[in-house]
Amino acid sequence: MQKRKKVVVIGGGTGSFTVLSGLKKYKNLDLTSIVSMADDGGSTGVLRDEYGVLPPGDIRQCLVALSEADYVTRDLFGFRFSSGSLRGHNFGNIFISALEKMTGDFNVSLRSISKVLKVRGRVLPVTFDNVHLVAELKNGKKLLGQSAIADCRSFCYEIKKIYFNKIAKANPEALLAIQDADLIVVGPGSFYSSLAPNFLVRGISEAVIKARAKKIFICNLMNQFGQTDNFTVSDFVTAMENFILSGVFHHVLYNTKLPPRSLLKKYSDEGYPVLSPFDLATDKRYYRLIGVNLISDSVPKIVKGDPIKRTLIRHDPDKLAKAIVSLLK
Amino acid sequence: MQKRKKVVVIGGGTGSFTVLSGLKKYKNLDLTSIVSMADDGGSTGVLRDEYGVLPPGDIRQCLVALSEADYVTRDLFGFRFSSGSLRGHNFGNIFISALEKMTGDFNVSLRSISKVLKVRGRVLPVTFDNVHLVAELKNGKKLLGQSAIADCRSFCYEIKKIYFNKIAKANPEALLAIQDADLIVVGPGSFYSSLAPNFLVRGISEAVIKARAKKIFICNLMNQFGQTDNFTVSDFVTAMENFILSGVFHHVLYNTKLPPRSLLKKYSDEGYPVLSPFDLATDKRYYRLIGVNLISDSVPKIVKGDPIKRTLIRHDPDKLAKAIVSLLK
Repeated sequence: MQKRKKVVVIGGGTGSFTVLSGLKKYKNLDLTSIVSMADDGGSTGVLRDEYGVLPPGDIRQCLVALSEADYVTRDLFGFRFSSGSLRGHNFGNIFISALEKMTGDFNVSLRSISKVLKVRGRVLPVTFDNVHLVAELKNGKKLLGQSAIADCRSFCYEIKKIYFNKIAKANPEALLAIQDADLIVVGPGSFYSSLAPNFLVRGISEAVIKARAKKIFICNLMNQFGQTDNFTVSDFVTAMENFILSGVFHHVLYNTKLPPRSLLKKYSDEGYPVLSPFDLATDKRYYRLIGVNLISDSVPKIVKGDPIKRTLIRHDPDKLAKAIVSLLK
Repeated sequence: MQKRKKVVVIGGGTGSFTVLSGLKKYKNLDLTSIVSMADDGGSTGVLRDEYGVLPPGDIRQCLVALSEADYVTRDLFGFRFSSGSLRGHNFGNIFISALEKMTGDFNVSLRSISKVLKVRGRVLPVTFDNVHLVAELKNGKKLLGQSAIADCRSFCYEIKKIYFNKIAKANPEALLAIQDADLIVVGPGSFYSSLAPNFLVRGISEAVIKARAKKIFICNLMNQFGQTDNFTVSDFVTAMENFILSGVFHHVLYNTKLPPRSLLKKYSDEGYPVLSPFDLATDKRYYRLIGVNLISDSVPKIVKGDPIKRTLIRHDPDKLAKAIVSLLK
């Protein structure tokens, strides 16, 4: 019998949700999701502030992606109260935070919730340390917190440096998963919210560099104003490798199809598509570029009461998974 | 193989929780819990007010009592936030209400949550109609809502009449369960909050009267000021039978051991023990009186943040279950 291939997805939020949802359908894969713990906006931010818990939001999305529970239970974890004293709160976030408050142990909570959601695979917080992001801008200003960084637009488009307010030690299980992986997938996801914070955790970059796995970077579909303005695919790779090591990725997957014009227009205040990588033809680069149509043809529902504005231009989970799996052969 | 005996417990809240927790250990019983839907206080009241949902609190306690999930999951459903914007809310109540809001169907929610909690047996709301209690006092005053009735003390100790603000139709499953039962257990529980409201639902009293089952009433340990002042066991039975039919109970179980003096003193502003039934020796009565030590020797924990003051003098689940099961032979 063939050994199950071990795939580790590093990221957080909607990006990892999409990758994992697609990969879950390949039953011969052993999936591990390593999740950014930097979020402090929306429902997650309120719970962190009021209860001192670790951020539940990204973890929740990855758990739901790998869940094999019935659709009612899975939907419930994404349910958001649109009114009343619970307005803006996501039920899954409340679930994770209540468990953490009760048990005093995020890991115990995670095991318990994984059982409830019948999670196939593992969801691992990149760290158990309760940290917040700090961004130092070129103008000398500092921004505290992931949501402040995500919210900033024109005034902060040049982030000079990003770090945690205190040391974050890696989750040992995450380090082991990286070490044992056959394939490591980084991205897609919000650059400073979901991707970079993973590599600010001590030991993660080193583990990825040392790992014998094939390493793929999946480029975002859209740029975010104030964060990745006018990035090309190669800009994205460079920015990401700056957090790990230049030349670390073997493959870079990027989308070749423009999103529908109507959606682009609707979200033109959020950002523009990542520029096509034609400029890369002459680049000196170590990775193999793979351009595929990766875009989702369906428009996700807007969730009433969600305090965070989310992009509706998304990767298609199946197209993404197919492209990733083809690299395992 | 012997057929599993069908036991139906009618009540709600802590009383039913105790009975069901004890009976659950008898694997040869087929358990159904029929639950009062009149609660509108505390976390339940806020959720009803803000989200228009059915009362989750009593249902939740009965689900947890019959749950065979791991202790972390069971404890979580009893977890209460003691601070922050979720202060006073019980997690299990939020779970049930979020599911109801999301699916728009309390029954679907109940099935889903029963799976999560691995419930052995069935928990059935006595009605799916969203109703509130009204109490008419002897002084002509009216009290609206179960919590207003539960909270009233000296000024309302004579409740003349109690009814719902609109018609409540019985849950057909509850009617069938009563019809098929081998044993029907009514009580213990707060008289006007958990017990009487079940029999204000159209069809429930008639079903209990017609049922071929053996019918037991379990008398409360304590009287509640303003509701059951200085009740003897026989007063309790009479009051309960007034809601169903005089002579409906075959057996009445009551406690013979006084609660510890220290606890009695501590809760002397809540009520006094139900008087011993010596007065009953000469009563003309149809039921068999069974007096046993039914009291719990352990003092339950006070839950921080709980907006409702709960009695700490409770039945022992195992003593109660043993006494009930002995009546099945």
